Amino acid sequence: MSGAMLALHGLGVSRGYAIGRVVVIGAAALEVSHYRVAPEDVEAECARLQAAIATARDELAQMASDLPADVPRELGAFLQVHSMILADSMISVEPVEIIRTRHYNAEWALTAQGQALGEQFAMMDDEYMRERGNDIRQVIERILHALAGTDTKRTWRESTLTEHNDPLIVVAHDISPADMLKLRGGRFAAFATDLGGGTSHTAIVARSMGVPAVVALGSARSLMRDGDTVIVDGEAGVLLVNPAPRVLDEYRRRQSDYALERADLATLKDVPAITLDGVEITLCANIELPEEAQAAADAGADGIGLFRSEFLFMGRDTLPDEDEQYEAYALVVRTMGGKTVTIRTLDIGADKTLDGEATVATNPALGQRAIRYCLARPELFATQLRAILRASVHGKVQILIPMIAHLREVRAAYAAIASARRDLDARGEAYATNIEVGAMVEVPAVAIAIEPFIEAFDFLSIGTNDLIQYTLAIDRTDPDVDALYDPLHPAVLRLIANSINAGARAGKRVSVCGEMAGDTELTRLLLGLGLTHFSMHPTQLLDVKREILAAHSNALRAKVATVLNRAAEMDLTLLNR
Amino acid sequence: MSGAMLALHGLGVSRGYAIGRVVVIGAAALEVSHYRVAPEDVEAECARLQAAIATARDELAQMASDLPADVPRELGAFLQVHSMILADSMISVEPVEIIRTRHYNAEWALTAQGQALGEQFAMMDDEYMRERGNDIRQVIERILHALAGTDTKRTWRESTLTEHNDPLIVVAHDISPADMLKLRGGRFAAFATDLGGGTSHTAIVARSMGVPAVVALGSARSLMRDGDTVIVDGEAGVLLVNPAPRVLDEYRRRQSDYALERADLATLKDVPAITLDGVEITLCANIELPEEAQAAADAGADGIGLFRSEFLFMGRDTLPDEDEQYEAYALVVRTMGGKTVTIRTLDIGADKTLDGEATVATNPALGQRAIRYCLARPELFATQLRAILRASVHGKVQILIPMIAHLREVRAAYAAIASARRDLDARGEAYATNIEVGAMVEVPAVAIAIEPFIEAFDFLSIGTNDLIQYTLAIDRTDPDVDALYDPLHPAVLRLIANSINAGARAGKRVSVCGEMAGDTELTRLLLGLGLTHFSMHPTQLLDVKREILAAHSNALRAKVATVLNRAAEMDLTLLNR
Repeated sequence: MSGAMLALHGLGVSRGYAIGRVVVIGAAALEVSHYRVAPEDVEAECARLQAAIATARDELAQMASDLPADVPRELGAFLQVHSMILADSMISVEPVEIIRTRHYNAEWALTAQGQALGEQFAMMDDEYMRERGNDIRQVIERILHALAGTDTKRTWRESTLTEHNDPLIVVAHDISPADMLKLRGGRFAAFATDLGGGTSHTAIVARSMGVPAVVALGSARSLMRDGDTVIVDGEAGVLLVNPAPRVLDEYRRRQSDYALERADLATLKDVPAITLDGVEITLCANIELPEEAQAAADAGADGIGLFRSEFLFMGRDTLPDEDEQYEAYALVVRTMGGKTVTIRTLDIGADKTLDGEATVATNPALGQRAIRYCLARPELFATQLRAILRASVHGKVQILIPMIAHLREVRAAYAAIASARRDLDARGEAYATNIEVGAMVEVPAVAIAIEPFIEAFDFLSIGTNDLIQYTLAIDRTDPDVDALYDPLHPAVLRLIANSINAGARAGKRVSVCGEMAGDTELTRLLLGLGLTHFSMHPTQLLDVKREILAAHSNALRAKVATVLNRAAEMDLTLLNR
Repeated sequence: MSGAMLALHGLGVSRGYAIGRVVVIGAAALEVSHYRVAPEDVEAECARLQAAIATARDELAQMASDLPADVPRELGAFLQVHSMILADSMISVEPVEIIRTRHYNAEWALTAQGQALGEQFAMMDDEYMRERGNDIRQVIERILHALAGTDTKRTWRESTLTEHNDPLIVVAHDISPADMLKLRGGRFAAFATDLGGGTSHTAIVARSMGVPAVVALGSARSLMRDGDTVIVDGEAGVLLVNPAPRVLDEYRRRQSDYALERADLATLKDVPAITLDGVEITLCANIELPEEAQAAADAGADGIGLFRSEFLFMGRDTLPDEDEQYEAYALVVRTMGGKTVTIRTLDIGADKTLDGEATVATNPALGQRAIRYCLARPELFATQLRAILRASVHGKVQILIPMIAHLREVRAAYAAIASARRDLDARGEAYATNIEVGAMVEVPAVAIAIEPFIEAFDFLSIGTNDLIQYTLAIDRTDPDVDALYDPLHPAVLRLIANSINAGARAGKRVSVCGEMAGDTELTRLLLGLGLTHFSMHPTQLLDVKREILAAHSNALRAKVATVLNRAAEMDLTLLNR
């Protein structure tokens, strides 16, 4: 690419600015041939596929055992995920069956299976799970390379790496954990990919490295050449290719302002989050992977407010056993060194491919998910509860139950916890006896009739993402209606206020752990609603703390009360400093 | 079948009891052969299918023009629906394309297409639309008969009809409108079918004839023989085959009690619905088809509280034009002779096959449906609004907007109505200038922050079915969670109370038109919540009126207030007389 400046719009998933030269990585998609094998060659073709799978398995194991100390911790977990996918029958058994029954060649069987799985994952209603479809694609690519006998190592010209002194910007169709491993070394200043979303590997690793990333760019890779000058704007989610000199100047200024701001923010790490009028605020972190706990500790989080446990269950057809879960939870608890770790019990739905049930509900968001799913599978739930209880000997653990809406679910959940304790007692296993149990406020019914729930639990945590979704009857992942998803709808704000006020009356903690908690535009609003416990992505924590340090809580509460009572559309400018 | 008594459980869709002899109708499913036609025979095969479609079209037209005066009015509408389906490209064009491209024989092409369409309809989240999949099946069967040259007339032995003097109970896999036509004559005392639901033809016609019906029995037809003695319990949704003498005695007693009760109820038709302490209650009817307005008038309804307009749009690929809609609305308005007719604007979603868009949302209930759908298709919405406005010259019409949740939707809906008025002004067409506009309360956000909505509209109508679904995050058509669908959840009752109270404060009507309004178990509860406007299926109206005549409104309001404030689970026995 040369000549005019080009702006490519994607999704900014890691903050900051970078200016540098493009390094395009990743070959074009492999050419896969499709043919039917003769009946007498079917078994040989099966063996060829199995050999390729074995090669891929060895490669992954080799990479994992050679993992250098200086790479982001998440990479080890991602490689493990790829190994698990490879061991899953959907990859190791089903394509072989396709060869046997339909006489497809190995490449065709594998890509057909990949396509079917990809469609299944694309339909899931959880962003994190949906993106795991990319992992499957990456694993299949690795096997295809093994079948072709080609090297899976991505190729980029060493010349590009040394020709300029400019920072290097990685541009790729997608970046696999293995690619990431090879990209380590510190000279990469940003990532830009055609695929991906907020919880893709690229996003998670870029955030943990503190470099900007823009994903979901569509066709950036094919539009760019090695050596192109590019600006990555992680704030706006934009890639500017061949920028004009005055644009470069503007971004150099932004980059240095941003660096100053981050340095300034870093000084807040150990400053207590107290408003100007002396209200103490607790700031916790949300994490998806055990390895992210370190980032939370590094940002000075007061604890883990939401540890999503779904990662343990994804993309596999055997359930994780109690020990495997215990190890994952214990790692987080130890990392947080005595600070509270709130582990949310499994929040997946019957539409997930877990345990091979392939039913897809018409409206999975209104179906058997989270606590409804767990109560219908007592052994699965008991295993997770025992693992959580056991992890409590290493620090301070809390249990958080998602999607509770009925008192009989409350009773059933407590009965399951009591039963898990008895199991451990019988085995003579240790666990803390003072573990607090809380519930998510995400079904509108709970926020509307909150008294029995605040009474039943030690604490509540408002999941604003789902609460808004149900209150407005809007699926925000549906592009036809996402514009109607509105955290400022007066009904939403009243439900949040009602939950916080009920907590204050009962002397119990009510936190917000949805995306609203990490949005600095909304910090003053939430303080005005009386919120004292926030939980958010670790990277958002210091920005939110800065807002809190500059806010006057009581003044905001008075202003918000006035606006709420008017019941008009919320105008945030009324809360400006 | 002979020997022991057998109880078959289904869904009671029309009330009452019948005792009689079985007449099994409908041949077993046609044997359909599958083969590929030679390339040179493809055009002849296409012509054979087209000829069969023409035969089916002629049969339907003939039946419609020969429609006797003594059959239920709905039958004419159902035959029209079948003619529309037959004219649709999904039947008249696509199977022909399948023959051309894949060289299937006509029967195979037709059944393949039928299966694909059936799956599409089965996934819809609206019961009425889902059941229209059965109409498609019935139309396809008619064409298959024409292809086979067999007679589509269902066969039952005349001997059975004359052998006994007992009433005859029709047992069938499914009953098409054409079957119903042939079944007229008055000797049939009940219907029982393997398929069907609450809005199937069988249900609608049985209710209008006042005979009991049980549907969704699974495999009743194959289990029974002509002449079996059977009890149809439309109250419990049960079929008792070869009942023991004492069971027969019990049911004869129930039957005569029921007949007495219905006769007693019929005397209430013209009695005003006033509680013991003098509160006047308005009882309106919900209808789905224009022809059902007569049943509403016959039951003494104070008006049509909810006329669902979806029937006009279903199972066709051209939209109904303004005149066709106007005729349908005008028929209802004229039938109600000056009483209010509330027409709800189109409540379908983007997942419907309307206008050929085949996208299926992940969570259609949280997607682009109802007013969201209409505002995205201004010309479709304008056409419907003009048709409704024009119908207002024949009586008293109200417009009811479904799924409103945001003030900007309120503004957009009013702008669309104003624009439709201007269109009619420009054409010099007449319409009433005092048409009231209301909105459904079914998105929780509206019930929670109701003030701006009660201010913006002339009246509100609470759609409890959807309101409960969203408030509890439960899809009640999902068998995994339907047990959690609870109209008595304190949160649901609070939202209803909040809506009714806001209406009372503003001096505006707030009605309930969901299923709760027609459930006599809940009449006292709703009176206790302050409800004065009910709308329900015409067959439920007199039962609800009887409850009202025996109730003391103020005493109930005091009791319900006490229970609601306690915020426990609602115990209806507290409201017993």
